[in-house]
Amino acid sequence: MATSYIARMPPTYGAVEMGGTKTSCAVGSTAQDLTDVLTFPTTAPEETLGRVIGYLREHQVEAVGIASFGPVELRAGHPGYGHITITPKSGWSGVDVVGPIRDTMAVPVGFDTDVNGAALGEARWGAGRDLGSFVYVTVGTGIGGGAMLGGYPIHGLGHPEMGHMSLRRHPDDPFPGSCSIHGGCLEGLASGPAIEARFGSPGPQLTEADLDQALRFEAFYLGQMVRNLVYTLAPDKVIMGGGVASMSGLLDAIAGSLEEELGGYPGLEEHGPGFVIQPGLGPLSALAGGLVLAEAARG
Amino acid sequence: MATSYIARMPPTYGAVEMGGTKTSCAVGSTAQDLTDVLTFPTTAPEETLGRVIGYLREHQVEAVGIASFGPVELRAGHPGYGHITITPKSGWSGVDVVGPIRDTMAVPVGFDTDVNGAALGEARWGAGRDLGSFVYVTVGTGIGGGAMLGGYPIHGLGHPEMGHMSLRRHPDDPFPGSCSIHGGCLEGLASGPAIEARFGSPGPQLTEADLDQALRFEAFYLGQMVRNLVYTLAPDKVIMGGGVASMSGLLDAIAGSLEEELGGYPGLEEHGPGFVIQPGLGPLSALAGGLVLAEAARG
Repeated sequence: MATSYIARMPPTYGAVEMGGTKTSCAVGSTAQDLTDVLTFPTTAPEETLGRVIGYLREHQVEAVGIASFGPVELRAGHPGYGHITITPKSGWSGVDVVGPIRDTMAVPVGFDTDVNGAALGEARWGAGRDLGSFVYVTVGTGIGGGAMLGGYPIHGLGHPEMGHMSLRRHPDDPFPGSCSIHGGCLEGLASGPAIEARFGSPGPQLTEADLDQALRFEAFYLGQMVRNLVYTLAPDKVIMGGGVASMSGLLDAIAGSLEEELGGYPGLEEHGPGFVIQPGLGPLSALAGGLVLAEAARG
Repeated sequence: MATSYIARMPPTYGAVEMGGTKTSCAVGSTAQDLTDVLTFPTTAPEETLGRVIGYLREHQVEAVGIASFGPVELRAGHPGYGHITITPKSGWSGVDVVGPIRDTMAVPVGFDTDVNGAALGEARWGAGRDLGSFVYVTVGTGIGGGAMLGGYPIHGLGHPEMGHMSLRRHPDDPFPGSCSIHGGCLEGLASGPAIEARFGSPGPQLTEADLDQALRFEAFYLGQMVRNLVYTLAPDKVIMGGGVASMSGLLDAIAGSLEEELGGYPGLEEHGPGFVIQPGLGPLSALAGGLVLAEAARG
């Protein structure tokens, strides 16, 4: 076999994070060299995918990885593979995300949910590097979670939609919930829009008293979510990102609420403070995961 | 190499199911040839393990598999491996289950939770045979669940304790819950002892009106549990066994309650009737899983 005399460059991948409110694109080969990050609002499908394709055409990439809001069809061989399935997000139900990008770019395209993407990024380069299992949770405009087990994100019949779990209501919280499907599911009670609807103004503009109350409610609901994750998945850690999760003091408050929720059962000290941690890659987890998805698609 | 002229017999394994109320032992090589099944109450640790060892010594087995109530320590290399950790069950906290059996029998011993054992049995010979992923749930004296993904039960930091998840209460249910740790967690609201404490008599002795009400509550809480499993794990199916789960009409009622819980999201027809199914091995799931654990331990 011939040996190349040219120094081997790492392949350049395109990474796309499509969130419910904004979309980001970047190129790179690792989380550390992500570059040319471009972020724009997620508007109508044609316009949004058009901007993604426009961005990718300006870069030479060997594969593309897309971490998308959902629900999405992930079953290989399913006629709807790579599409958004049904979503409350106007105009997006049934939209083919992978098809137009693969057809235009003529490179392999990897595809998963935004939170599975973020989990993949954290597993490779972030706070999940040394963990056998963890759940990545995002708390922002929506709430979602991706579980990594043995190096892979959990998939099955569809994919997890952890924000829509049912839990018990805080006794002082009369807010009916903001989820358009379930009302008072976790997302309906603890997402950014839930805070805004409950107190009448967005998180950053709350009065000090409302902020205290919001923090108590967030700690209560998210501590309860983490309890349910512990009892269902037994992860080594929970990594929690997103705008709401960055509220000052929230992780400490969740640690306290989790202790109450578990009630000393099963009695592992690992579930104490430090069990719920911040992402290692800050807001770049899902874009970094896009690189992992691109690499896997390239094979 | 020499070839044996004697017909090769399948290896004989010892299978042990240690439940909170009763313990069963059997020998065999597959779920279909489980034989010599012996069942006795789970009493004090020394007496119970003594009877298990007495049984096993009467049979020639090449390995033993134990599916045990928990919580148990499953981390290989942990000094407490094979022990019950802390349990409300009197006298059992810290008891070494694997050690005395391995020492006396001098054969390899496999060990996992009762529900992971049942999930393994169902995956190999029962209702989980053709499924990529499923959760085995038992509803009886306690409530527990074991999730199979890609051929293995989920482990992490400890193991799942699905009965202790938090969920919302039925608006007509003032019963505070029977769980000694959490009061009104799933197990505290929907296990056999919860039904007995709520209505003042065991399930089989309820009046017709109480039985109707019990069925409504069970469907509400178990449908909600399945919703949370769908949104957290996205399994292909849920297999539900145990004494309470065999209440007439319960699986149909759970299908109705699950439909309400999901609210059409994520809109997969697979989540309709037939998503929650009975075990294929009836009450033998966990003993069959003991065979799988024994086989894996033998290597």
